[in-house]
Amino acid sequence: MAKLWGGRFTKGTSKAVEDFTTSIAFDARMYKEDIAGSTAHAKMLAKQNIISKEDAEAIVAGLREIKTQIDAGEFSFSVGLEDIHMNIESALTAKIGEAGGRLHTGRSRNDQCAVDLHMYVRKTVPQMGELLVDMQSALLEVAEKYNDVIMPGYTHLQRAQPVLFSHHMMAYCSMLQRDFDRLHMIFKHADIMPLGAGALAGSTYGIDQEYTKELLNFGAIYENSMDAVSDRDYILEFLSFASMVMMHLSRLSEELILWSSSEFNFIELDDAHCTGSSIMPQKKNPDVCELVRGKTGRIYGHLQGLLTTLKGLPLTYNKDLQEDKEGLFDTIDTLHFALSINAAMLRQMKVNKERMYSVLKSDFSNATDMADYLAKKGVPFRQAHEIVGQTVQHCISNGKVLLDLTLEEYQAISPVFEADIFETISIETCVSGRQNYSGTAPVCVARQIVFGKNFVEDAKLQIELWNKSNYGLNL
Amino acid sequence: MAKLWGGRFTKGTSKAVEDFTTSIAFDARMYKEDIAGSTAHAKMLAKQNIISKEDAEAIVAGLREIKTQIDAGEFSFSVGLEDIHMNIESALTAKIGEAGGRLHTGRSRNDQCAVDLHMYVRKTVPQMGELLVDMQSALLEVAEKYNDVIMPGYTHLQRAQPVLFSHHMMAYCSMLQRDFDRLHMIFKHADIMPLGAGALAGSTYGIDQEYTKELLNFGAIYENSMDAVSDRDYILEFLSFASMVMMHLSRLSEELILWSSSEFNFIELDDAHCTGSSIMPQKKNPDVCELVRGKTGRIYGHLQGLLTTLKGLPLTYNKDLQEDKEGLFDTIDTLHFALSINAAMLRQMKVNKERMYSVLKSDFSNATDMADYLAKKGVPFRQAHEIVGQTVQHCISNGKVLLDLTLEEYQAISPVFEADIFETISIETCVSGRQNYSGTAPVCVARQIVFGKNFVEDAKLQIELWNKSNYGLNL
Amino acid sequence: MAKLWGGRFTKGTSKAVEDFTTSIAFDARMYKEDIAGSTAHAKMLAKQNIISKEDAEAIVAGLREIKTQIDAGEFSFSVGLEDIHMNIESALTAKIGEAGGRLHTGRSRNDQCAVDLHMYVRKTVPQMGELLVDMQSALLEVAEKYNDVIMPGYTHLQRAQPVLFSHHMMAYCSMLQRDFDRLHMIFKHADIMPLGAGALAGSTYGIDQEYTKELLNFGAIYENSMDAVSDRDYILEFLSFASMVMMHLSRLSEELILWSSSEFNFIELDDAHCTGSSIMPQKKNPDVCELVRGKTGRIYGHLQGLLTTLKGLPLTYNKDLQEDKEGLFDTIDTLHFALSINAAMLRQMKVNKERMYSVLKSDFSNATDMADYLAKKGVPFRQAHEIVGQTVQHCISNGKVLLDLTLEEYQAISPVFEADIFETISIETCVSGRQNYSGTAPVCVARQIVFGKNFVEDAKLQIELWNKSNYGLNL
Amino acid sequence: MAKLWGGRFTKGTSKAVEDFTTSIAFDARMYKEDIAGSTAHAKMLAKQNIISKEDAEAIVAGLREIKTQIDAGEFSFSVGLEDIHMNIESALTAKIGEAGGRLHTGRSRNDQCAVDLHMYVRKTVPQMGELLVDMQSALLEVAEKYNDVIMPGYTHLQRAQPVLFSHHMMAYCSMLQRDFDRLHMIFKHADIMPLGAGALAGSTYGIDQEYTKELLNFGAIYENSMDAVSDRDYILEFLSFASMVMMHLSRLSEELILWSSSEFNFIELDDAHCTGSSIMPQKKNPDVCELVRGKTGRIYGHLQGLLTTLKGLPLTYNKDLQEDKEGLFDTIDTLHFALSINAAMLRQMKVNKERMYSVLKSDFSNATDMADYLAKKGVPFRQAHEIVGQTVQHCISNGKVLLDLTLEEYQAISPVFEADIFETISIETCVSGRQNYSGTAPVCVARQIVFGKNFVEDAKLQIELWNKSNYGLNL
Repeated sequence: MAKLWGGRFTKGTSKAVEDFTTSIAFDARMYKEDIAGSTAHAKMLAKQNIISKEDAEAIVAGLREIKTQIDAGEFSFSVGLEDIHMNIESALTAKIGEAGGRLHTGRSRNDQCAVDLHMYVRKTVPQMGELLVDMQSALLEVAEKYNDVIMPGYTHLQRAQPVLFSHHMMAYCSMLQRDFDRLHMIFKHADIMPLGAGALAGSTYGIDQEYTKELLNFGAIYENSMDAVSDRDYILEFLSFASMVMMHLSRLSEELILWSSSEFNFIELDDAHCTGSSIMPQKKNPDVCELVRGKTGRIYGHLQGLLTTLKGLPLTYNKDLQEDKEGLFDTIDTLHFALSINAAMLRQMKVNKERMYSVLKSDFSNATDMADYLAKKGVPFRQAHEIVGQTVQHCISNGKVLLDLTLEEYQAISPVFEADIFETISIETCVSGRQNYSGTAPVCVARQIVFGKNFVEDAKLQIELWNKSNYGLNL
Repeated sequence: MAKLWGGRFTKGTSKAVEDFTTSIAFDARMYKEDIAGSTAHAKMLAKQNIISKEDAEAIVAGLREIKTQIDAGEFSFSVGLEDIHMNIESALTAKIGEAGGRLHTGRSRNDQCAVDLHMYVRKTVPQMGELLVDMQSALLEVAEKYNDVIMPGYTHLQRAQPVLFSHHMMAYCSMLQRDFDRLHMIFKHADIMPLGAGALAGSTYGIDQEYTKELLNFGAIYENSMDAVSDRDYILEFLSFASMVMMHLSRLSEELILWSSSEFNFIELDDAHCTGSSIMPQKKNPDVCELVRGKTGRIYGHLQGLLTTLKGLPLTYNKDLQEDKEGLFDTIDTLHFALSINAAMLRQMKVNKERMYSVLKSDFSNATDMADYLAKKGVPFRQAHEIVGQTVQHCISNGKVLLDLTLEEYQAISPVFEADIFETISIETCVSGRQNYSGTAPVCVARQIVFGKNFVEDAKLQIELWNKSNYGLNL
Repeated sequence: MAKLWGGRFTKGTSKAVEDFTTSIAFDARMYKEDIAGSTAHAKMLAKQNIISKEDAEAIVAGLREIKTQIDAGEFSFSVGLEDIHMNIESALTAKIGEAGGRLHTGRSRNDQCAVDLHMYVRKTVPQMGELLVDMQSALLEVAEKYNDVIMPGYTHLQRAQPVLFSHHMMAYCSMLQRDFDRLHMIFKHADIMPLGAGALAGSTYGIDQEYTKELLNFGAIYENSMDAVSDRDYILEFLSFASMVMMHLSRLSEELILWSSSEFNFIELDDAHCTGSSIMPQKKNPDVCELVRGKTGRIYGHLQGLLTTLKGLPLTYNKDLQEDKEGLFDTIDTLHFALSINAAMLRQMKVNKERMYSVLKSDFSNATDMADYLAKKGVPFRQAHEIVGQTVQHCISNGKVLLDLTLEEYQAISPVFEADIFETISIETCVSGRQNYSGTAPVCVARQIVFGKNFVEDAKLQIELWNKSNYGLNL
Repeated sequence: MAKLWGGRFTKGTSKAVEDFTTSIAFDARMYKEDIAGSTAHAKMLAKQNIISKEDAEAIVAGLREIKTQIDAGEFSFSVGLEDIHMNIESALTAKIGEAGGRLHTGRSRNDQCAVDLHMYVRKTVPQMGELLVDMQSALLEVAEKYNDVIMPGYTHLQRAQPVLFSHHMMAYCSMLQRDFDRLHMIFKHADIMPLGAGALAGSTYGIDQEYTKELLNFGAIYENSMDAVSDRDYILEFLSFASMVMMHLSRLSEELILWSSSEFNFIELDDAHCTGSSIMPQKKNPDVCELVRGKTGRIYGHLQGLLTTLKGLPLTYNKDLQEDKEGLFDTIDTLHFALSINAAMLRQMKVNKERMYSVLKSDFSNATDMADYLAKKGVPFRQAHEIVGQTVQHCISNGKVLLDLTLEEYQAISPVFEADIFETISIETCVSGRQNYSGTAPVCVARQIVFGKNFVEDAKLQIELWNKSNYGLNL
């Protein structure tokens, strides 16, 4: 079919070029946004008397019909029509005739595709918010369910000090709170309307951007039309956000994989979230965790890809910008999967309390507390550290742990030791004694859980607010 | 010299390992933060009666002396002492004796290095704000200075429609406004205090994090100690921010390079910002622009590098995290250079008004306006587009532009043309007619400039607020 | 349907996990490789008397039927069956019964999916070779067709010295020769057979890897089974190769875009490779070049993505490795498009010889030759450079170029000038005088073209050799 | 001081620009290459009678003196002189007067800096080769030293099948062999001489590139001068190589960290390669492994950085290309550290044979062999897999492993079991039975070790050959 821009051309586009430049395969998922944008534009054109009221009504009705068709899977998309915008406009003209040709008055494909993408990202923000909140809720549930489990805390993957399992879970809850924080900026920068920028310089038709903005529920209008059609910051912000979410999930995944190993044996994932081996009958593999960890690379790649594409690009629209969508859409889908499966997996995970406890009884996680004991009795910390280091070395050589030593042995090490050393370095005291604000003591973790629940409640209200902007999609 | 953790070890670290793991070469630049953190920690320990008042006073005085020495370049750093923390602590102990050994009570290197880095990034935020604001001011100055210059606007690097040169400049001003926006989130996440997290689990000493927080002027305390020592989100946010700034600057650089070419010849950069060739005497190269564009890669690389480092890292502290600093510091330095030189360059740049105008008179940038003219007279836009496309083709074949055609020729093309076509497609009208909110008409650009100036004023107040948090550095 | 590894499990995989972990949507394109691998494996099992001759024949015949079905588009793939391997094996068992269950004897999905991917990449190498060679041929054709065109050569996008247009084209030919070079290493590392590695440790069945290797035409067998199932180096090598090809193409694209601009106006791309604007009737946009340049980001992202995925992964197979395929396949498709369209575009491009020549006559590209002239007469080069620099400055102020000066003016500048200066700094002499091996003189470029043609001939022979390894696909 | 290109300029470079564009801080390490390149160039100029024999001798002697000074640390570099090339040339002219000014005849900084970097990378290739070979030797030594150690082999970090510890080590040896392979291509593309390309187009002086090539021991000359000054492929190839080496090392590091944990407890790293904690006296942290794993991000970042810088860069030289060095040099240094420390660490590592063996006796790593047993007795493999899966499930519920079952229990599971089942699923048989070429049986691993040693011997000869090219540095 004839291109809509063919006048100046003496021959058509080659088939290979058509295949290379078409975007309908992936931009079709923005059809709701495209139709809402066109509907608002048509209404504005009528209000400004740029097109007639009758034309506008025919356009709006025609678009509504097309939306119904696409919703129902009854619309047939054509590669030759390049993109979602041309597919819909072409169908509209077929349906309502000449009036369809007037819809494009006062806009360009540059601001049209920008407004679609803005609305799509804006719609995605509360969806991501919900996923984050559900994952946080899962962490909170697990933290409450296992609030009496003590586990070894690690630095350098070496056992360091005992911590509450709930404290460990709540660390991830904190990370996801920061991730949620980042949604505000994405929303803010997605919630600016580019429509009216035209190809790059604005329009001569006397359009009313303020009115279109109201119809589409945008928070602001781009100050500058050239910026409006060139800007992809909000997508980069989304990809940066997603990279950080995936980084956080990759850390959790790594830990779940470690804890599921025979060597750690701290947790058991539900069969529903594992797969087996075609050849080794004993295997139960934490596939989901591995896949989330592995997919982190893909999301980093999408971020890097778009950053590269935008590097050194002169203003305003360049075809390079068509590369903004596929990575974005794949990122949205990946996050959706990764967050929702992780939440389900955590909820069904079993925690092996006894195993963790027995591990702690056979190691030196309480060595810091022994050093602290000395320090509190006046031994300079650096010297206390030295004494305990040597005691540990001595115990290792003799196959003992600190709690195995007798009071006499303690006093041989240093005369300041008294009988209360045993209570002091018991695993329970090691945990309950760390009562400062951020500490792992039960009272602190309980406070964190309250804080986390309040965060979740506030986040839900925020999500509702964000969702209101989507009323613009139902014109 | 003896390591401060050597008790459990039967032999020392190899020299090669020492060289590989040392960080003093790059973390020395955080000495102010390290000293402030230690000072606050000592004061809190004394307030809580964990150390004596006398010890605290000796520590604070000793640290103040060390700071003076480093300020004056009279402090000698040692690679064997691994990092800035050990270098300072070791000097302190040499100076004040046993009391120095008590400073480390109730903290660990993990929370100590985290609090230093938090304060360093927090301090960087207003510095970056100032650089962005100065660059915006330069753009505003240029936009006002050349507010009567019309230039071709481009899409696909093809001339599209005439725009005000000031409009083009203001597009960059909008980008930098979004960049400034992002500083809020970095500040928020840097402004959380990790001190008190200890190695990972908190402290048994009865420390008062709230008091330390007040001394160091932090906005909040980490909810969770394990998160506190593992979290590098604020650095990733800084690197994401920096990548976007550099992406924006790379686009500006590309344009300045294009405009400086003989082919465009739209601007002339000052000799102070160009270099010559060792062999070609006629050359004047826009080196600064090229280097800014080129350095974009380096910053993207730092972002990707830290993302990679953090991928799949189990909690809490792992030595991998030492890789958080070099890329960050290089990014800060690069941004500093790139933004400040760009601001200076813009201020001294000369704009070739006549050249741009003559270019517009010899091309088809007004073709859209001709099509719009037809559309406004009732020709469906798609048909109007077709007619103008053919007219352009006809003009090209005959070596003419649209304004060269006679009224007769116009009327032969379409009877709806009247004498006002010439005024309609004059370059000045093409610009002044685009009066919608985001448009390029002088009235719109004037509004943008007012908006930009207000933004700059508000930003300066914000920078002042941010700077107040640095009072914590002057304990 | 029941999983093939379900014995140890008390419940099935959740639907969400199934959707998340399935790979059939993208690994179906390896069906030929999967069937070839299974056929060879079955033949080897029979030869070693591990399965009966009858079973092997049934398997081979069944697989052949399945291949025919898939070729004809008559095979229906199931998401529940996870991947291409299970889809085919399940269909086989449905077709031939119990014998199908014996095919998996002595192998695992780990070595099975590895051998498929090895063969797929191995097959891709000569395909990429052909695309590179065709693109080189296009460059050679253009270099010969326009061998009398002189253009300005640039450094820093400033005109530097005149060069032959053919010389410029041949620079890209050299880049693609290095790209072709890299295919050898990819082929070498793809051409190693992992089959027989089993899950990770080899097999107890007495399999004969040497025989399977012969059947599948592999050049070598993996030395080490753990390496065999963990190794994705050959894919990283392919993605590195592809990143460099795209980098080269992005540079060419940038130049074609510049040269297509009104300002340069050096070339005209065919209408078949451009698109227009929906709103600006005069526009003819070099979309293909922009898209190739833009898609460079996507390929870099795939490389970075897989590097990230592999970072820190313990041996041997981990599910993370499933992420090896999508980026690879998208890279292959993108390279295919980018190289083939570029070749076509170059062949149809028109070069504006007159425009380039007129540009050269109005600039200072011959300034180096004037300096060289002085240097050859004994003026130290640094001094000659200074003199010419000042002369250029003088000409700019007076609106002249060097060839406009009279002999008297020259002699006023320096007494060493004689009448031959005019011939020396003529554009033709500037080009023909650079006769050293790598230089731009016509004789040098002619030599390069011969070299390039020979390279292409040798490359074609190499491609034939590579293609022979694919005989393994037609068992 | 006066720039060497200042003639055409009316004012000097600003100080900020000078600081931003200077490269002397990092390119000084190429002084040997710069001096060799200049020496060869001077000799060629004299041979061609472009400069006098006396001038050439003065230049060569002067350069030799400068080299001696730099070697001895007695040369003072100046930032104002921009780079290593200008620093040396300026010192030369100060030393020998006017003749120094003639050295730059017939070359440009563009080809000069390119030839320096080519020689530097070429010199680096055998250095990297030696590091790889030493690391391979360390792996071979460890593989021989512990050739009787059996360990659990893992997939998905779940115990899968027993393997020889030596087999696991040899997997890394195979990876490093492929890394060594890649050096050939880097050497080939670094070993092409760009000198003579001039600024971009070659030279008019009648230079003899063939002669210079002989003097500098290059394998080839660039076919095309424009390519010669634009090409950074060999650096990208080096960075790709380095990324893969680091990826391999990051996998090894991850495993060493896991194996050093209390949970695995498979190895003990020497105290010399670990560090302790400032607060936890019991800690012994595998810092080196963590740092190598962490530094992987940095190297990936350098690769991505240069790829980004080169994207879309028009020919020929642009200042962006100055970004080619810092990442490269840091990569070389990082690889040097990482490989040499890893080799030392492996040689001193202790392997805990008993622990690994006891682990295997308490798990299901022999489940595959039980299934194979059934399959060899005629049970279709899929059915055998099912049976063993259920047996494993039964054992887990009863706290047993497969070897704990009695013959009666076995026969209750399936009548095909006979007394030889116990021998078949013993850990030793599981290993020794996997005798196919790539398998883990001792005989196969012994073959791999022979292969590895031969590879090392061949590699050493190759390194010697590569080193010969460096004779060019000692002109």
